Amino acid sequence: MEAEFIRWLKATLPQQSRTQAGIGDDCSTMDLAPDLTPVITTDALVDQVHFDIRSQSLRVIGRKSLAVNLSDIAAMGATPVYAVVSLISPRNFKLSDLQELYTGILTVAEESGTLIIGGDFNSYDGPLIVSITAIGTVPRADIKYRFTTQVHDRIFVTGPLGRSLTGHHLTFTPRLTEGSILAAHPEVHAVTDITDGLVVDLDTILPGDLGAVIQASSIPCRHPSDDNQSDISHALYDGEDFELLFTVCSDAKIGSLTDALPVDIYEIGVVNKNNKIQLQLQDGTTQTLRIRGYEH
Amino acid sequence: MEAEFIRWLKATLPQQSRTQAGIGDDCSTMDLAPDLTPVITTDALVDQVHFDIRSQSLRVIGRKSLAVNLSDIAAMGATPVYAVVSLISPRNFKLSDLQELYTGILTVAEESGTLIIGGDFNSYDGPLIVSITAIGTVPRADIKYRFTTQVHDRIFVTGPLGRSLTGHHLTFTPRLTEGSILAAHPEVHAVTDITDGLVVDLDTILPGDLGAVIQASSIPCRHPSDDNQSDISHALYDGEDFELLFTVCSDAKIGSLTDALPVDIYEIGVVNKNNKIQLQLQDGTTQTLRIRGYEH
Repeated sequence: MEAEFIRWLKATLPQQSRTQAGIGDDCSTMDLAPDLTPVITTDALVDQVHFDIRSQSLRVIGRKSLAVNLSDIAAMGATPVYAVVSLISPRNFKLSDLQELYTGILTVAEESGTLIIGGDFNSYDGPLIVSITAIGTVPRADIKYRFTTQVHDRIFVTGPLGRSLTGHHLTFTPRLTEGSILAAHPEVHAVTDITDGLVVDLDTILPGDLGAVIQASSIPCRHPSDDNQSDISHALYDGEDFELLFTVCSDAKIGSLTDALPVDIYEIGVVNKNNKIQLQLQDGTTQTLRIRGYEH
Repeated sequence: MEAEFIRWLKATLPQQSRTQAGIGDDCSTMDLAPDLTPVITTDALVDQVHFDIRSQSLRVIGRKSLAVNLSDIAAMGATPVYAVVSLISPRNFKLSDLQELYTGILTVAEESGTLIIGGDFNSYDGPLIVSITAIGTVPRADIKYRFTTQVHDRIFVTGPLGRSLTGHHLTFTPRLTEGSILAAHPEVHAVTDITDGLVVDLDTILPGDLGAVIQASSIPCRHPSDDNQSDISHALYDGEDFELLFTVCSDAKIGSLTDALPVDIYEIGVVNKNNKIQLQLQDGTTQTLRIRGYEH
């Protein structure tokens, strides 16, 4: 079946126009613009940890497997170029199962301009695993790191947070356009994507003794309920939002940024030097938040 | 434990001198020489398929996990530069287990000049999996593909074949030096590494209607026994030899090649247009070989 799958892949993958050697040689060659900096990320998704093969379609699972990697590319301000895909499948997988999975991967690849240029295939006695490595490029001066936040920076997110497991974690579109626009704005100091939860991921962009105060009333919540406290708690800790979280210089006007971005952004707080993350409630009181994230 | 492991990794990984962002950001940045072509390969190794955690040390397993990827880099004539490591570990793995495994990976990384610049870590209910993606560089004119073999080429290997599972498959050194030397010699037409078995891998460097005749008496056999026929059979079909298999222009003198290479090479046959792979025995008779490889 592996041979059949590889034959199908070779026929299905778009022409390897940017590479001379693609699927089938020992390595794939890459053609990267010499004036841009390449960036790389790798993420493995595991059945029963990151998705559930019993209730979710293989196409949607394939989609997510590439999308989570592209979300990391977006968080650097980079544009994706290549990906390699390693499938480790249960022995009872059929050719049609692999094709469904791969069709989901290819959908996101085509939407994002990512070329699948290589991979590996194994079957074993265990759950489905999709391990993808993605490569993007970005002008060196535009790279958005995590450690470049400064005191007094304003904190923003690109969309509503929380309750992603109701569906968004499978169907989200990686914020690549938004990441590129943030990259082109030097007043944006640091960017990451929210995967483990707002509080944990915010902590990763607060180096040294930097801290933050978040306004509870400003946090955009996905699928808001009648219980605002519950909505906020989901937004703070759920994870898998795949929205961009970024900090902007306190002196900057954000008009040109909001004009350029195709989505609304939400200002949720401000950076200080208190070395902790606090939530300010509507009555003016604050509480210090525990740095804990979503456990898959 | 994941947090402890990441802390240990950050302290242990060599200074990310060639990258500005390393472990801990959304992506790692890469610094690739603009006049060289980057190549990429990915290979996942699975417990009970490619190694056996019950009888082999984690250090040796880590070693092999990177080495198999570097063998692919060598087969392109490239020099390794970066790797990213995705570990998917059984839930009962201890921090010391991860450290042992990683120490094996780092040994090969240091020997080969490969910088580990990123990764992913997951634990789950299943066997240990190490999924590595490696990146190398090579002058474009020197890249050694598989499809560039020509009729009448002479066929060589860089070392003895067969019975790798007695130990060699865990302890081999990827033929990086040899690959670079082959790359610098234009009379070398095609190169691959022997992973699935001599016959299957030879077939991959015989495009179109090209075929080959191999001399049984010329095949170097690992751990030869009293049973020459058995030795030959192991050499043809066992796989996991990780020697380079390459073709050389029939007009060329191979003196400068053998002078440059640090290891002996073995001429095992010649390319023809018969679209099959044949074995010539010492009595002059030939038999057509079935294209089947080692099944993990």
